[in-house]
Amino acid sequence: MGENEYTKELIAFMQETGFVWGPSPEIYGGLAGFYTYGPLGKLLKNNVENAIRKTFIENGLWEVECPIIAQEKIWEASGHLTSFSDPLIFCTKCNGEYRVSLLIEEAKPELEIGGLPNDVLLKLIEEHNIVCPKCKGKLGSEITQHNLMMQTKVGTDTVAYNRPETATTTYLPFLRYSEFFRKKVPFGIFQIGKAFRNEISPRQHMLRMREFTQAEGQLFLYAHQKYEFEHFDSVAEERLPLWPHKNQKEKLPVEQISLRDAVEKNILKNQAYAWTLNLTYKQFLGMGIPAELIRFRQHSPEELIFYAEDAWDVEVKLKSFGWTELCGVHDRKDYDLKQHSKFSGQKLEIFDGETKEKLVPHILEIAFGSDRPTYALLDIFYDPSDKERKVLRLPHILSPIKVAVFPLVNKENLPEIAEKICQDLKEFVCIYDKAGSVGRRYSRNDMRGTAFCVTVDFDTLENKDVTVRDRDSHEQVRIKISELKETLRKLIHGEIKFKDLKK
Amino acid sequence: MGENEYTKELIAFMQETGFVWGPSPEIYGGLAGFYTYGPLGKLLKNNVENAIRKTFIENGLWEVECPIIAQEKIWEASGHLTSFSDPLIFCTKCNGEYRVSLLIEEAKPELEIGGLPNDVLLKLIEEHNIVCPKCKGKLGSEITQHNLMMQTKVGTDTVAYNRPETATTTYLPFLRYSEFFRKKVPFGIFQIGKAFRNEISPRQHMLRMREFTQAEGQLFLYAHQKYEFEHFDSVAEERLPLWPHKNQKEKLPVEQISLRDAVEKNILKNQAYAWTLNLTYKQFLGMGIPAELIRFRQHSPEELIFYAEDAWDVEVKLKSFGWTELCGVHDRKDYDLKQHSKFSGQKLEIFDGETKEKLVPHILEIAFGSDRPTYALLDIFYDPSDKERKVLRLPHILSPIKVAVFPLVNKENLPEIAEKICQDLKEFVCIYDKAGSVGRRYSRNDMRGTAFCVTVDFDTLENKDVTVRDRDSHEQVRIKISELKETLRKLIHGEIKFKDLKK
Repeated sequence: MGENEYTKELIAFMQETGFVWGPSPEIYGGLAGFYTYGPLGKLLKNNVENAIRKTFIENGLWEVECPIIAQEKIWEASGHLTSFSDPLIFCTKCNGEYRVSLLIEEAKPELEIGGLPNDVLLKLIEEHNIVCPKCKGKLGSEITQHNLMMQTKVGTDTVAYNRPETATTTYLPFLRYSEFFRKKVPFGIFQIGKAFRNEISPRQHMLRMREFTQAEGQLFLYAHQKYEFEHFDSVAEERLPLWPHKNQKEKLPVEQISLRDAVEKNILKNQAYAWTLNLTYKQFLGMGIPAELIRFRQHSPEELIFYAEDAWDVEVKLKSFGWTELCGVHDRKDYDLKQHSKFSGQKLEIFDGETKEKLVPHILEIAFGSDRPTYALLDIFYDPSDKERKVLRLPHILSPIKVAVFPLVNKENLPEIAEKICQDLKEFVCIYDKAGSVGRRYSRNDMRGTAFCVTVDFDTLENKDVTVRDRDSHEQVRIKISELKETLRKLIHGEIKFKDLKK
Repeated sequence: MGENEYTKELIAFMQETGFVWGPSPEIYGGLAGFYTYGPLGKLLKNNVENAIRKTFIENGLWEVECPIIAQEKIWEASGHLTSFSDPLIFCTKCNGEYRVSLLIEEAKPELEIGGLPNDVLLKLIEEHNIVCPKCKGKLGSEITQHNLMMQTKVGTDTVAYNRPETATTTYLPFLRYSEFFRKKVPFGIFQIGKAFRNEISPRQHMLRMREFTQAEGQLFLYAHQKYEFEHFDSVAEERLPLWPHKNQKEKLPVEQISLRDAVEKNILKNQAYAWTLNLTYKQFLGMGIPAELIRFRQHSPEELIFYAEDAWDVEVKLKSFGWTELCGVHDRKDYDLKQHSKFSGQKLEIFDGETKEKLVPHILEIAFGSDRPTYALLDIFYDPSDKERKVLRLPHILSPIKVAVFPLVNKENLPEIAEKICQDLKEFVCIYDKAGSVGRRYSRNDMRGTAFCVTVDFDTLENKDVTVRDRDSHEQVRIKISELKETLRKLIHGEIKFKDLKK
């Protein structure tokens, strides 16, 4: 199945099975870039977000929830008001509007346009005779800047914006954090929440939405702590799949490098950044992304945003779109706190016991979200290879529905027993399903990624046992009802394997 | 402590301890009606939301996540565009703007103004000589309607709004639900997410914010199913603290009435509504609100919104603000689906096997959120009666931090052992705390609501046991390290009581 064909099949599967619907609201024709998580998609997304929480909390970061809306001054300080924009060009014939970079990339993929100024881009459009992709009309001779923030108003006259990222809002309560942590630096904060970008060309389904959920972790630390980071030793021997900028240029492959080596060879600039990159890796493994589909790609100097010291992206290999950026890890230095200090007039610094001076901490940021990983999990684990029995092979712990319970037939006492078993299994997400043949119920649950199906049959009446079927192997075992909950719990948490039950 | 005094103390406690900060962003002076959950507040809010999820899922409802933003037409259909507004009046001297109802209520609390038209309100202002509360200036002679929705734009020209409630967005994928549930009605959907209201006078701290988190459950059912509701029998004997409109008028008290009696006496209109009210009660008990602080207050006919068949509010008795509305349960009939059908041109109906016709389902709605219950829990369980040792007496299962582990002193091996114990307890939210005297660490954790403190001392080295201290009784027991995790787990889940450990 080709990339394009698979993408279509995947999106149709998401819609039909109840994972992701959209663009929303569908009955009104849909608004590009807005999607709805259906019942199964929302369970999966919650599992992803809980995995993110668990990993952050276990690594000592604390969650906060800041408002989505903030007034204009904050975005002036952060730089979003002036520079968070896309260059747009209009078609002189049909009035269609296009992001210049996307337009050129799609018309002439061989051109390297990163960082080029607008007048050069206009010349490229003319030279290569790039026209409106819709009507083939002539494009305008001007590029306008389209700010990506969604403006609104608070009260009757305060201009405000829906945040374009969680990060800026996470930085603002800095003085409160300083009290909460009793002025002990480093400390870590994360936030999971909505952000909004008024993209002109939303595309690639859930990968570039106008409303999306970010999950961003922020490590606050003094500059001098980067080089001797207290937690570094405990992770120094971990190996990460790194693809430094130099290797990309020289067409060398991704390498598994230990953090200690990476810091010593100056592939990673310092211990704290290396620790942060390792935490990022744990995040993606914790969300169930297979290690062999993950790589860390370093930004080239041209890609780096002006205030960033270093940046690496997590890329995940998708069947639909190939290697795809799912996360960025940035050394933002003291840029943000200094800007907000300047614009708010408040000193954002802490007395450092070591250097005996007040310092503005630096920030290392892990910027990702829960939409793309949710999409990635569906992309990676959806298996339509057997047309008769398509399966969503999610890791059990991520499956939206853990267990489905069926009565073999709707006769005698079987439905009542099955319903009672389902009640007993409420600590998992467990559904009762009596519609259609058992084969049909199996395949419906395979599509949903349900980890185990439990069937109550006539033998149950006599032996007090049920059939448990494994989604991936289609194998079945008989389990006593009295042992069912504990067995399923161990299976779901990976403490035992299904094939061990056969013995 | 008076109501006002307690409110001040409570809000100061929330700010200082790291529960709720704001108005946010504080370093920029704050924007009224916007608050930030600090590390402890966010843990508490997550616990509240997880309790909500658990109760809804156990009762057969499925969660979805719909976009916050929707275009103008949706809000035209829902009625928000024309009627979701507050009458405003301006001061002719200082230009201050006021919600008319609030202004009159605060100046003349004895006046009954519900449902009065604008010209009557203007007369009342004149008659009672109500002036600008800030500058005592004369108020204008006109009332303008201030729409409470926050407008924004999508793309370059699509007018859209941040949703003022989740409910409308939950209704829009109706046809998708119909497929997902294989046209089997009734079915239930819930959504937990942000909503926005551009209040002119945000007040009462977290009780009336401009950005807030709603949790709304929607039961879709045919009208005829209301009177014979399949799940009614299983809850018919449950007793709820009901305060019917008639009793309010006649100054009769709240009564514990069984659902069966309430339906028979026509206090509740039908079985499905009674079941829904019972689910609502379970929600509030599940969030840890004590039963004796909950009552259900029926709306009077004058309070009812035009399309609603019946409405009851959940009120919770707060120390700060007295009886306070935390939830509304509404019979919305087929109003919403019919409106969206009309405006979208799509038929929103399902073939009913019983009546053999296509029907537009009715909707019973449980409308609440997670901010007010979070505030209520802090209000109810914060206990500053002992000035030397203020305690947050949250139910263990809701405590943001379950366990704190201390080394008695920072000597010998005690810190290492304590840290290792903390690592082992990671399945709970567990913190390691070594700063200050043990007494100070106890009181710090009492303020945070930490359920149990574990101290590692010199006896630990010999006996491999630790001191476990109970937050509420201040009692202590020695527990073997090898039994610690299991003991704490049982304590936190309420399977054993602390005093039983003493035996």
